Amino acid sequence: MSRLPDFPLAVSLGDPAGIGPEVIAKCWDNRSAFNLPPFVAIGDGRSIDAVWDGPIEVIDDLREADAAFDVGLPLIQLAAAQTDVPGHPSVAGAHCSLDALELAVGLARSGSAAAVVTGPVAKEQLYGIGFAHPGQTEFVAERCGVSSGNVVMMLAAPTLRTVPVTTHLPIEAVSARLTSALIESRGRATLRGLQRNFGIAEPRLAISGLNPHSGESGALGREEIDIIGPAIAALAAEGWIVTGPHPADTMFHSRARAHYDAALCMYHDQALIPVKALHFEEAVNVTLGLPIVRTAPDHGTAFDIAGQDRADPRPMAAAIRMAAECAAFRAETV
Amino acid sequence: MSRLPDFPLAVSLGDPAGIGPEVIAKCWDNRSAFNLPPFVAIGDGRSIDAVWDGPIEVIDDLREADAAFDVGLPLIQLAAAQTDVPGHPSVAGAHCSLDALELAVGLARSGSAAAVVTGPVAKEQLYGIGFAHPGQTEFVAERCGVSSGNVVMMLAAPTLRTVPVTTHLPIEAVSARLTSALIESRGRATLRGLQRNFGIAEPRLAISGLNPHSGESGALGREEIDIIGPAIAALAAEGWIVTGPHPADTMFHSRARAHYDAALCMYHDQALIPVKALHFEEAVNVTLGLPIVRTAPDHGTAFDIAGQDRADPRPMAAAIRMAAECAAFRAETV
Repeated sequence: MSRLPDFPLAVSLGDPAGIGPEVIAKCWDNRSAFNLPPFVAIGDGRSIDAVWDGPIEVIDDLREADAAFDVGLPLIQLAAAQTDVPGHPSVAGAHCSLDALELAVGLARSGSAAAVVTGPVAKEQLYGIGFAHPGQTEFVAERCGVSSGNVVMMLAAPTLRTVPVTTHLPIEAVSARLTSALIESRGRATLRGLQRNFGIAEPRLAISGLNPHSGESGALGREEIDIIGPAIAALAAEGWIVTGPHPADTMFHSRARAHYDAALCMYHDQALIPVKALHFEEAVNVTLGLPIVRTAPDHGTAFDIAGQDRADPRPMAAAIRMAAECAAFRAETV
Repeated sequence: MSRLPDFPLAVSLGDPAGIGPEVIAKCWDNRSAFNLPPFVAIGDGRSIDAVWDGPIEVIDDLREADAAFDVGLPLIQLAAAQTDVPGHPSVAGAHCSLDALELAVGLARSGSAAAVVTGPVAKEQLYGIGFAHPGQTEFVAERCGVSSGNVVMMLAAPTLRTVPVTTHLPIEAVSARLTSALIESRGRATLRGLQRNFGIAEPRLAISGLNPHSGESGALGREEIDIIGPAIAALAAEGWIVTGPHPADTMFHSRARAHYDAALCMYHDQALIPVKALHFEEAVNVTLGLPIVRTAPDHGTAFDIAGQDRADPRPMAAAIRMAAECAAFRAETV
């Protein structure tokens, strides 16, 4: 890693019954091979003990993290009201995962942690305890005092970064949701995120079309002409380097990818199919538009394989590594 | 190549002003490096002369092809009414491209050619001379006495084959076009094509969902429950090995691809994004459901670069190689 932040990273364990504790512990095991900087786990250490035999170093202050990291997995202990069996989530575990998330964000907000990496949570359990956000991203945004409409989810991998303009919508509803204003706002947040989190002074954004062949001049849909084209013109008029609308099927091969720093896509699968086809184990969810750096592995709690030593730690390692790199870029430009 | 057909392949030049003549000639130049079997170009040799200095061997009978292939590019000469300048299509060129296509199909139908590979044509020019089909595929189907509704387009590449259920439709119109019957019919044609063209006795078909996360049990769309699921059940009841509906973003990484021989996708970009992201220069368009083997490179006439020696022959080479392989499989199973 060329750049390292001066402070440790705060990594929330996520749901104690999910694979979060296992993959985070495996990241410490493989910290050299994965090239990881010091990080501190936040959550209930018993959920790690249940799936891992390695050493845990409980700390109270992040200033102890660097020294602790050499001898064990540094942990800020937040005991859940009960100990969960891996694969069997509970209300107590949901509370604990939320407490860990909140503390991690607070540590980053205060400057004690360089960035936040979030382990996977169980949304159903969180909803059961009154959690009113669609996901962790919106919760983090609120805790940072940012409207969730102004943060964007980027999927970042070694040779491709994509941002979906719309996310969890039926395909049939995508067109009605698209507006020039929404595309411009997502585009701006992406471009600023490339500057702040990735150190790209003059970022290049490629914007996809919605329809096959980008609508073929209106023959296969008019969104490119009526909505996407004007948004591209507006962003370009602000001085940003923006191209498109590009036919989505020909914008993700290696020669095409060399021409942009991120692709802004119109819907969930348009953004996620290429990143996961090319880089399934290295795709990192990066939240842009926050005052802090926040990343997450792009997988869920995987309760079905929790506690079986089968979880792949590479996505979590990629999330930790990318958080460190983004934090270092931010420190340089502050 | 492990298998070779006993007869040469018929390769139509496509529009004489496009890049077809150039890439076909370059394939002959690189026939050893590309590992290509004997093939015969069909069209106006003057369009090759305009962009290539190599030797052309005009033949009248495909039985001369093997011997001719050793000394030059074998050609069945169909003179256009005028000579086009590369990059400037004409009505005469459109007529010639159609004549070449028709002859190539006839040679394959009669058994003189092992398969047909089609160079790119200019649809606008073809429409100008009264061509009433959406593309070459439908024309070939008609000449073979097959309803165009029963042929499917497969995009085939070294590690992934996909078939779109719907093709040139606005995204907003996809849902309304999907029916269980359409998915079943496309699925059956794909499975039979995997048997006949690819020699896979017990083919495995993975069927995608339409919506993000495959609809999340109905929360993000009901097509998976109401339309796609029943089609999968119907195909399985016929004895086919069919799985799904799979979330499209997690079905194209390398481990997932190992579980199926082809993916049936709900719309154009869902099928084409992953193949082109992974294998841009090797993606071949294969028409399934015909009595003959027909392949094509997945690119157009590219008039903007025609005659500049810039066209990449690898997609055409991949189409020729795949046609030969499919023809050999067919010959084995006849």
